[in-house]
Amino acid sequence: MSKDIGITVKKSEDFSEWYNQVVLKAELADYASAKGFMVLRPYGYQIWEIIQSVLDREFKRLGVRNAYFPALIPESILKREAEHFKGFVPEVFWVTEAGDNKLNERLAVRPTSETIAYSSYSKWIRSWRDLPLLLNFWNSVMRAEIKSTKPFIRTSEFLWQEGHTAHATKEEADKMVLTILNLYKWFIEEYLAIPVLAGCKTEREKFVGALYTTTLEAIMPDGKALQMGTSHNLGQNFSKVFEIKYLGQDKQEHYVWQTSWGVSWRLIGAVIMVHGDDKGLILPPKIAPIQVIVIPIFYKDKPNEELASKAKDLTALLTENGVRAYCDDREEYTPGWKFNEWELRGVPLRLEIGPRDLENRTVTFALRDTSERVVVEEGAVVEKAKELLDVLQTRLKKRAEAMFRELCSTIESYEEFKQILASKGGFIKAGWCGDQTCEVSIKEETGADIRVVPFEADSSLKKCVYCGREAKITAYFAKAY
Amino acid sequence: MSKDIGITVKKSEDFSEWYNQVVLKAELADYASAKGFMVLRPYGYQIWEIIQSVLDREFKRLGVRNAYFPALIPESILKREAEHFKGFVPEVFWVTEAGDNKLNERLAVRPTSETIAYSSYSKWIRSWRDLPLLLNFWNSVMRAEIKSTKPFIRTSEFLWQEGHTAHATKEEADKMVLTILNLYKWFIEEYLAIPVLAGCKTEREKFVGALYTTTLEAIMPDGKALQMGTSHNLGQNFSKVFEIKYLGQDKQEHYVWQTSWGVSWRLIGAVIMVHGDDKGLILPPKIAPIQVIVIPIFYKDKPNEELASKAKDLTALLTENGVRAYCDDREEYTPGWKFNEWELRGVPLRLEIGPRDLENRTVTFALRDTSERVVVEEGAVVEKAKELLDVLQTRLKKRAEAMFRELCSTIESYEEFKQILASKGGFIKAGWCGDQTCEVSIKEETGADIRVVPFEADSSLKKCVYCGREAKITAYFAKAY
Repeated sequence: MSKDIGITVKKSEDFSEWYNQVVLKAELADYASAKGFMVLRPYGYQIWEIIQSVLDREFKRLGVRNAYFPALIPESILKREAEHFKGFVPEVFWVTEAGDNKLNERLAVRPTSETIAYSSYSKWIRSWRDLPLLLNFWNSVMRAEIKSTKPFIRTSEFLWQEGHTAHATKEEADKMVLTILNLYKWFIEEYLAIPVLAGCKTEREKFVGALYTTTLEAIMPDGKALQMGTSHNLGQNFSKVFEIKYLGQDKQEHYVWQTSWGVSWRLIGAVIMVHGDDKGLILPPKIAPIQVIVIPIFYKDKPNEELASKAKDLTALLTENGVRAYCDDREEYTPGWKFNEWELRGVPLRLEIGPRDLENRTVTFALRDTSERVVVEEGAVVEKAKELLDVLQTRLKKRAEAMFRELCSTIESYEEFKQILASKGGFIKAGWCGDQTCEVSIKEETGADIRVVPFEADSSLKKCVYCGREAKITAYFAKAY
Repeated sequence: MSKDIGITVKKSEDFSEWYNQVVLKAELADYASAKGFMVLRPYGYQIWEIIQSVLDREFKRLGVRNAYFPALIPESILKREAEHFKGFVPEVFWVTEAGDNKLNERLAVRPTSETIAYSSYSKWIRSWRDLPLLLNFWNSVMRAEIKSTKPFIRTSEFLWQEGHTAHATKEEADKMVLTILNLYKWFIEEYLAIPVLAGCKTEREKFVGALYTTTLEAIMPDGKALQMGTSHNLGQNFSKVFEIKYLGQDKQEHYVWQTSWGVSWRLIGAVIMVHGDDKGLILPPKIAPIQVIVIPIFYKDKPNEELASKAKDLTALLTENGVRAYCDDREEYTPGWKFNEWELRGVPLRLEIGPRDLENRTVTFALRDTSERVVVEEGAVVEKAKELLDVLQTRLKKRAEAMFRELCSTIESYEEFKQILASKGGFIKAGWCGDQTCEVSIKEETGADIRVVPFEADSSLKKCVYCGREAKITAYFAKAY
């Protein structure tokens, strides 16, 4: 593989450039002709399809149904919940013209769908029989990014899902918020092999218009935190503004309690950052579009028909047995070139088969993360492939957990706080008095904000890391993407 | 069912009002708060998901992969192909502001993705090894509608898929165009149970920027034609403008040949119009989210546990055997109310089970289209359900074909042409000299345009229906949605 095709920087030396090269050269995504926007290429889209299919199945198990709401929202509707509007207005794209006509009212390109959805919910919900209303939308949203674009992490448009539910009581809404947060956590840890911290956002960091926000946060190898998903209890803030009322079994009218929650293609960005190495992407088997790449080792001076047909048969056998396999039998590329290409693209397992294997009725597996090679009897190919994919999935998770532990510090003094942040970064667990002035001062002085307030406080942290007063809250601080 | 819940007009008496009532009352879709836009509600979305899953599977079998391109297109990119731009500019929504900032360049909300996709294709395609490039995008597009909104049929935003392929030769592109047209035709006839005419559009009616357009057209019960899907050969019009070139095996540079093709949620509109009746929607079983609705007939004065549990068991049994079944065991509604509701929603088959059935170990099926009732041994439920669903699918198709034949006329004189158009409408097959002035005159005088030029001409039609000169072309005329 020539230099300009492979990754030309080390992950440990220039993380940002390494990341951009992996995204582009593994053909996951590309920059678009509109500044700040990204094209999701087929290989990246296949990963998104796998993420979608698992989450969609789980949402449906919970009774959540899909729907589609318009991408344009009249300004008057977006404005109804004042805080929500104030939070989003700096980054809204506005449609002001249609054809040659100036519009009477500006239309916002959807930055999120609370307002447009809830103006319909108020028509659809009449009685307790209509509750709970559990909907989800797979769509794209737009938020004008003034900072520089980072594919998957920061783009002006992104693909995501947004769930929007309405319930009879606060307790039911609370439960929904946590059910979804736990579902996200399970998915991120078991499928993406990335450990996350779970907890609440502070008042300052919560979703605009929410009662409270729960969040999942991961840590990247450069020591910066990445928000992986959020689940909000919106209380009755929106239902009062949009008049979403139901007639209860008590014959009284009540406002509904609402939740909203979402994850985006940012999850793919996290996978790239956490698992990749100097050769490129490494995909956890459970989300790899190709789990096993089958490569026949053709010889120039021998007839290759038998080899080619054996490679195809093995690919078919794996596919029939539920393994996502693909046979790269292109004759215009050398085996070495193919090895490099599929390593760059992060395929977890390579199956090589050459003339000698054909004679011996064996194949050779190579594992993407360790480069370890294993010779296997042909009859055991399926069983062994599944076993090795499991090994790899578990190993990636363990490795990510080790990094996570390495990048989690518990401190008591502000000096130590600043020192760790300047050296390795990561999550810093500390006591906090709960006062916003301390939160803001820390952010201004160090660039770190409170990413998570964990559900259980650490009682050993007795003082606020900034002001020294009594710590009422345990907080995880970090610099973040 | 109270009057305001059920359909209050007859399909034969006020087709347009009947259609709108079915859309709203079967909860397929709703009007959105932005004028001209529509909300796709969960029941409608489930139908769209079934349509998507079948087409997506077939696209992938052809080697087509999915991708996502931005929803905003810089004006300079949209303008590059002059005809294409001219065709779309009257209906483009323009983003001119982001937050408080005026943009330097207007951004078009995607009316279709040729231009933005092909500005990437020119980067991705280098050599013959990169061809064919076969991509598809599931997204939404926007075209400002000045006429009044008709859900599924005419809305300012709609969900669709758009395929965009690049090939080495014109022959390959020609083949792709027809492969997709035939796939659409098969899907529309076999799944939606709607017969269609296949053929080409005239120069005047082809896609702006295409070499030629192929189309599928159906006829609605009110005698108006509905375009169901199109597949275009774009020739080298876009590749020359966007500089999409490849180095051939002959070591020479060549421009690629391109195709694009799409179907939209309009297909759901056609299903409603063609199959529905005075009671509401009738869904062809193959695209029905619920194929069998199971309704236990509870008695007020008896214990119903056994009945409820039997109904659930039968539902599970059907589901395990690949039948989409749902049990409506709500106790707050009467069986009669439920019958009406599920008939309104077009569920093809109802399974009733009452106390007497429980004793006799039988169930009763009712067919949505004919109201025919069939008593079946409990042990034969799965087999019989599948059989009746097949019967219904075939019967709907046959009925639609009969309507299609009834609404297809072949004529020789312009008098007859106008007479038929004024009475029953439908497709009118006639000879045409090929001259655009005749095509335009007919359109202006009667409102009918040429929907399809069939692949095979009818040699019995010797004269142009308008000018009387020699007929060079056979054309199907109709008024259209």
